[in-house]
Amino acid sequence: MNISIIGLGLLGGSFALGLKAKGAPVTILGVDSNPRHASQALAGKIADQILSLPEAVAKADVVVLATPVNTILQQLPEVLDMLPAGAALLDFGSTKEQLCAAVATHPKRGQFVATHPIAGTEYSGPEAAFASLLEGKTMIICEREKSDPAALAVVEQLCHTLDMQMRYMPAAEHDLHFAYVSHLSHISSFALGLTVLDKEKNEKNIFDMAGSGFSSTVRLAKSSPQMWGPIFTQNRQNVSEALAGYIAQLQQFKEAIDARDEEQTKEMMAKANEIRRILG
Amino acid sequence: MNISIIGLGLLGGSFALGLKAKGAPVTILGVDSNPRHASQALAGKIADQILSLPEAVAKADVVVLATPVNTILQQLPEVLDMLPAGAALLDFGSTKEQLCAAVATHPKRGQFVATHPIAGTEYSGPEAAFASLLEGKTMIICEREKSDPAALAVVEQLCHTLDMQMRYMPAAEHDLHFAYVSHLSHISSFALGLTVLDKEKNEKNIFDMAGSGFSSTVRLAKSSPQMWGPIFTQNRQNVSEALAGYIAQLQQFKEAIDARDEEQTKEMMAKANEIRRILG
Repeated sequence: MNISIIGLGLLGGSFALGLKAKGAPVTILGVDSNPRHASQALAGKIADQILSLPEAVAKADVVVLATPVNTILQQLPEVLDMLPAGAALLDFGSTKEQLCAAVATHPKRGQFVATHPIAGTEYSGPEAAFASLLEGKTMIICEREKSDPAALAVVEQLCHTLDMQMRYMPAAEHDLHFAYVSHLSHISSFALGLTVLDKEKNEKNIFDMAGSGFSSTVRLAKSSPQMWGPIFTQNRQNVSEALAGYIAQLQQFKEAIDARDEEQTKEMMAKANEIRRILG
Repeated sequence: MNISIIGLGLLGGSFALGLKAKGAPVTILGVDSNPRHASQALAGKIADQILSLPEAVAKADVVVLATPVNTILQQLPEVLDMLPAGAALLDFGSTKEQLCAAVATHPKRGQFVATHPIAGTEYSGPEAAFASLLEGKTMIICEREKSDPAALAVVEQLCHTLDMQMRYMPAAEHDLHFAYVSHLSHISSFALGLTVLDKEKNEKNIFDMAGSGFSSTVRLAKSSPQMWGPIFTQNRQNVSEALAGYIAQLQQFKEAIDARDEEQTKEMMAKANEIRRILG
């Protein structure tokens, strides 16, 4: 099976490495606009060949769009236009509503499966990819009913090979949830990094004094601006609403602290502790 | 050497377990107002005996106050009053300015060493304690010049046994830095937990969809309100200033997202990426 991966970064690369590690009979045709990433992907055995996008699509049984979501938005209808009959197209974008809308009336819509693998790290590029990234993780499929059963079956089979669990939901619901459980986390981390960098001019101080708590909260501030900028733009309304809610919670904390109202801060923290039930 | 630990929680318990694991010739006299924690500490070999506070202090070569900072504020002058000549007193509070001020003119001030071990997890109580928690971590000592050389030497020797690195700084500087590199992280996490719990009524959704990024950012929301409430109160001004800066950064993000100004969000994220230099 020829799988053409457009964008040989963390997710695209890990998808390829994961399938190969499981012994799946796949040939990976890689496409990347960055020549350095293309050769790293060859060297790292992510891609078996590097091709141009039209060549890779023409030869594909499955095409994966694993580029930033603004690029996916542009590539999705173009790739669908040139997709061979019987091939399946999927994408790894963290937003789903605008992407699905862009091909809603495309004559080949059925060959597209809108997917979002819930996995990642704060690193990017082919050198960040590793075989077990997707293993055991959740794959969300949106607008399942708009995909042809054959295309859906191919995608589900590949996910099954990686021991991924499938979840199905409408694209709008996906984008709303992910504004809260993913996109907001990233902004909270970026803003925390900026606040601390702004205040602490002496890096040795941050380094020596930051405990594991700070590292864990600020970890996502290392994430790629090229990847996250377009996500926030495409999911603008939900992210803005989530941010407004977050800012309101922080302001309530600040007011309670300013007022020395320790009962109030304790009450808020006790309520936040309920996250234990979810995180385990 | 008799070490009396007041508060047999995560830090006090890990300090005891760490010293024992290193083969230090110590007898741990434990004090805890919570009888369940006291028996867990005995069962977990944290404490060799459980005593009342006055008994434990009377028999001590070293006393460690490892209670929440509001309790430390109250216990510090009382314990200093009854501290045997030649014994050293230290505390594990995350705030230092008010604690140091509370005993600034105490006749036995020299026997007190104001310390803050930079270590912790989101869990609390004796069952959360483990021998390696403090190993290789930083111990901050404030107002070193106000401690007697003998008391300082005992504390530094114990830290040395645990392979801890020492850092010295004024109490006010400590509290300012920790508002940024620790206290703010905790509030950002508590507020994130509240925002998501508020929006996502269906816990299955959060559980299935939250990736490792969310878990890492919201981890500290599991922290103890009893421990953190008094920290925010004691470090009120610095924490409030840090929160104001954080809220301003988030608002700037929100404005850029609302205005679809992707260049601006990317610029902010690229600046936040500089945290890589510090976190490695």
